[in-house]
Amino acid sequence: MTDAKPLDVVGIGNALVDVLSHENDSFLTEHGLMKGGMSLADADRAHALYDAMGPTTSVSGGSAANTMVGIASFGGSAAFIGRVRDDELGEVFTHDIRASGVRFGTAPATEGPATGRCLVVVTPDAERTLTTFLGAAAEIGPEDVDAELIASAEVTYLEGYLFDQPSAKEAFRCAATAAHESGRRVALTLSDFGCVDRHRDDFLTLVDREVDILFANEAEICALYEVSDFDAALQRVSKHCEVAALTRSARGSIVVSGDEVHVADAHPVDGSVVDTTGAGDAYAAGFLFGFTHGHDLGRCGRLGSLAASEVIAHLGPRPETSLKDLAAPVLQ
Amino acid sequence: MTDAKPLDVVGIGNALVDVLSHENDSFLTEHGLMKGGMSLADADRAHALYDAMGPTTSVSGGSAANTMVGIASFGGSAAFIGRVRDDELGEVFTHDIRASGVRFGTAPATEGPATGRCLVVVTPDAERTLTTFLGAAAEIGPEDVDAELIASAEVTYLEGYLFDQPSAKEAFRCAATAAHESGRRVALTLSDFGCVDRHRDDFLTLVDREVDILFANEAEICALYEVSDFDAALQRVSKHCEVAALTRSARGSIVVSGDEVHVADAHPVDGSVVDTTGAGDAYAAGFLFGFTHGHDLGRCGRLGSLAASEVIAHLGPRPETSLKDLAAPVLQ
Repeated sequence: MTDAKPLDVVGIGNALVDVLSHENDSFLTEHGLMKGGMSLADADRAHALYDAMGPTTSVSGGSAANTMVGIASFGGSAAFIGRVRDDELGEVFTHDIRASGVRFGTAPATEGPATGRCLVVVTPDAERTLTTFLGAAAEIGPEDVDAELIASAEVTYLEGYLFDQPSAKEAFRCAATAAHESGRRVALTLSDFGCVDRHRDDFLTLVDREVDILFANEAEICALYEVSDFDAALQRVSKHCEVAALTRSARGSIVVSGDEVHVADAHPVDGSVVDTTGAGDAYAAGFLFGFTHGHDLGRCGRLGSLAASEVIAHLGPRPETSLKDLAAPVLQ
Repeated sequence: MTDAKPLDVVGIGNALVDVLSHENDSFLTEHGLMKGGMSLADADRAHALYDAMGPTTSVSGGSAANTMVGIASFGGSAAFIGRVRDDELGEVFTHDIRASGVRFGTAPATEGPATGRCLVVVTPDAERTLTTFLGAAAEIGPEDVDAELIASAEVTYLEGYLFDQPSAKEAFRCAATAAHESGRRVALTLSDFGCVDRHRDDFLTLVDREVDILFANEAEICALYEVSDFDAALQRVSKHCEVAALTRSARGSIVVSGDEVHVADAHPVDGSVVDTTGAGDAYAAGFLFGFTHGHDLGRCGRLGSLAASEVIAHLGPRPETSLKDLAAPVLQ
């Protein structure tokens, strides 16, 4: 019975555990890290960086996984497809996502690289800079895309990061096809400006032909269209996909769908901004929860802002407070 | 040269990684946990409890290890003796304690149980309830007590928890003897009221004959003397060891040494009390830093309160802000 229940959203992405430390800006320079970006690292490079980091906190992460947890926190129904190994961090990832109420059934790898991890350096301005060792997360392929699960979900949500690995990219395409064949919608997050640079042509074609709902921040959407001006990117994207939700940090977000344009202000943060890790993931969660529960696009944007404001007020990318409770005044 | 430098404090204790989640009080009842206490669990029991917990955050812990990290955060010099396994959590523990500036050289176990972990349930009142799977931490024995290291440290700091395992208890006794033979001081934390109940006779003898500096909270010192009144316990302890620092949560602490009695108020918390995990460990850090840097006992108590106030303002048992910076106004 539980399995037959239709889902709001199924997400596919890299299953990662985040390992976070606070460092000064000089740490980024010393280690050749581009602030706010995500770079991939092999095991040796990741190990060397970890050795250099200060004391760490470990929490489950992964962009699409964070978004699914956010949707569940709003009271929505979500599933996740992604791969861990059968090791200690894999157990942590699996525990946390299930304990958050997200359906997660991808079998762990029993050989090959360890569970993936993302080294998160948080600087005093609360910006996060990511270095990802994909590990087992890269071992996802079209065979992991459960077509029935995809068909049961109103929206299939995909990470742009998946394009960094050939088999994950295939899984991505396979999921998008399955969703559309079932009359479902496909949502994409561009993930990272570096990721957009690496896959611009693919992403342009995707946005034009396959993506119904696009999530991007200012740097990503400007990188996609190779423009330096947000408004120029906005004019372009409105012609290319059904709905685009474009986030601009403290300046809030713009939601555009054809001629319909909404401005959602950033939601005030309770306390100070501690760590922006997961802000975009949380925004997508709020937006997609609203979208799959029949709210208008303006309110979807506001729910996104609300979720992001919770996540940036503490260390780590997933909500620590029930988003359903926080959203109650908005949804009344 | 570095190794030859005298140390402020060397700590011996259980090397653990803390796995924390927020739960309601009913969770404690359902799982038969006594609020505020520490119970030992085998791997199966720990696994079952972990499965029942909500999403978790993992940070390095272990009582004496936390205290050593606190001393280093004050700018003091500290070393730690304790055992992990050569697994992922063992790597995390080792990374974090070294990254905090604490000398840690105990070789990891290459076989036997996994690195120990402490499941920490934080209830809405910020109280923490501990369930510990000792794992490799229990595999510590007298052969791990580096007599030279002990001789080089002004104070040897021991966890009462060590008495829960026969070989760890032997390590404890061996370290105390080595410290006294070198003319050094021995400090003990009673750790937990349940632990005091299990080892009352041993602890009474220890406090009388071997312990120079005793740390205990109200429940522990009352359990030791089997009295229900704090003042009654205070009158007893002042006759039994050189210095006793007795903590009373929000009511601050009392430091007693013969006829000398100091009252140190609780230090105001920046924000709200989030999680009391590590409060006692941090208090001991502040106290021992002060003690090994020539401060009077009243100030030692105030430094303890200051350190505790930092640690209870966030999730996890170790300081996130430099205690040296926080203490600067007090030490001027």
